[in-house]
Amino acid sequence: MSGTDLKNKELIKDGPVIILCEPQLGQNIGMVARAMANFGLFELRLVNPRDGWPNEHAVKAASGADHVIENTTVHDSLSDAIGDLHFVIATTARPRDIIKTVRGPVEAATDLRRRHNEGQRTGIMLGRERWGLNNDEIVMADEIVTFPVNPAFASLNIAQATLLISYEWMKSADINPIEKVFAREEEKPAEKHLLVGLVDHLEASLDDAGYFHPPERRSTMAQTVRNIFTHMKLKEQEIQTLRGVIASIERRWQRRRDEK
Amino acid sequence: MSGTDLKNKELIKDGPVIILCEPQLGQNIGMVARAMANFGLFELRLVNPRDGWPNEHAVKAASGADHVIENTTVHDSLSDAIGDLHFVIATTARPRDIIKTVRGPVEAATDLRRRHNEGQRTGIMLGRERWGLNNDEIVMADEIVTFPVNPAFASLNIAQATLLISYEWMKSADINPIEKVFAREEEKPAEKHLLVGLVDHLEASLDDAGYFHPPERRSTMAQTVRNIFTHMKLKEQEIQTLRGVIASIERRWQRRRDEK
Repeated sequence: MSGTDLKNKELIKDGPVIILCEPQLGQNIGMVARAMANFGLFELRLVNPRDGWPNEHAVKAASGADHVIENTTVHDSLSDAIGDLHFVIATTARPRDIIKTVRGPVEAATDLRRRHNEGQRTGIMLGRERWGLNNDEIVMADEIVTFPVNPAFASLNIAQATLLISYEWMKSADINPIEKVFAREEEKPAEKHLLVGLVDHLEASLDDAGYFHPPERRSTMAQTVRNIFTHMKLKEQEIQTLRGVIASIERRWQRRRDEK
Repeated sequence: MSGTDLKNKELIKDGPVIILCEPQLGQNIGMVARAMANFGLFELRLVNPRDGWPNEHAVKAASGADHVIENTTVHDSLSDAIGDLHFVIATTARPRDIIKTVRGPVEAATDLRRRHNEGQRTGIMLGRERWGLNNDEIVMADEIVTFPVNPAFASLNIAQATLLISYEWMKSADINPIEKVFAREEEKPAEKHLLVGLVDHLEASLDDAGYFHPPERRSTMAQTVRNIFTHMKLKEQEIQTLRGVIASIERRWQRRRDEK
């Protein structure tokens, strides 16, 4: 599913900061960067990455999300990483003995968007690959976001969790980018006289082929055939194609007739 | 974010089939299986996986989604892989010159859930890592689903795309009770093998009629004709009617031949 085009299309750079607490593998950091870029986030902060920074595995796994990688900052404490933010949520799959509002991703993203629109700087915290965030870190968050996973198979890696929350962030915008990308105005269904021309043509052709048999069933059979084509919402170009198909078959008959 | 627990919690196994067309890396297949398991999907079908099957890299990357890996089947054609399904959507990031309904993931998942609840077997097709689905494959789908990605950074890998659509599938379980009450059961679309039979029949017939001219345009012309019939959501009875229509015309040729 490729489609990266940094030259001709608007590069969205906006939204909450992603904060990774003690990430272990550079590859995972890169995949987080890629997921962020897919949905318009661009500001990544690392708290004590195990293998240091910069990291070539991260660059490779980012698959071209260079603007995220180059912009990434490293911090020696979570307090430092979130110091300039107004509102931070923590992602976790497990229930915790911490009294904190827990939201689903849609609700969390909608709230982040509202705060963002009001000028608040927001962030989303994710933990280590192996055991997530510890309680000291979660305590620093305003709220918890969790995902509606299969209870018996709940493990999401940090890139997957980033992808889902970034996706919900993108969806929470008023303007749906799908509409932009696929903005080829949906072609209108053809005017009805073209459709009538098609089904008349087909019916005449079937008459010639002796399709309507026995005669007393002609009306029902013709209705059935017509109805197939009338519920298709055919476009003008498709009607032309179908008329070409019928005409092609008819010329075949014609040739055979002439050959006789 | 761990939490896998296959013993004590209900393992959800339900929902649309995931179909991967010519996947290249075992690791990606494994990550697709994991994403499926996270959100309760379990039936994976591979069309001509490049490195064969089973694949140890897939097992490793599946991170414990063994029930998906063990259940995976391999097929030598897309037609075979979707033959028993009633409704199939294709994922793609790029606009195509194919006339087909394009939906966002929420809308697509809601529709899949409705069909699933009515007893239809549904599927989601994904393409190769490098260039996605080709047009011949997309033509076989009923509809297209695409994701609201950053227009300038639109590349989603197959595991990410699977994660997002599986996540929306899981979310779609909360069905508005009003919709249940008003749900008039719609007749199922025909199983795909019947549709394949129809378009193959028509194409053979058009070949005989010399429709595909000039030869270098054959592939595009055949796609156009096939696509008209694949986006119609034809019912089984309608396919029978259309085959009758074609057969009638063919008998006509046959008679003329015999008369010579």
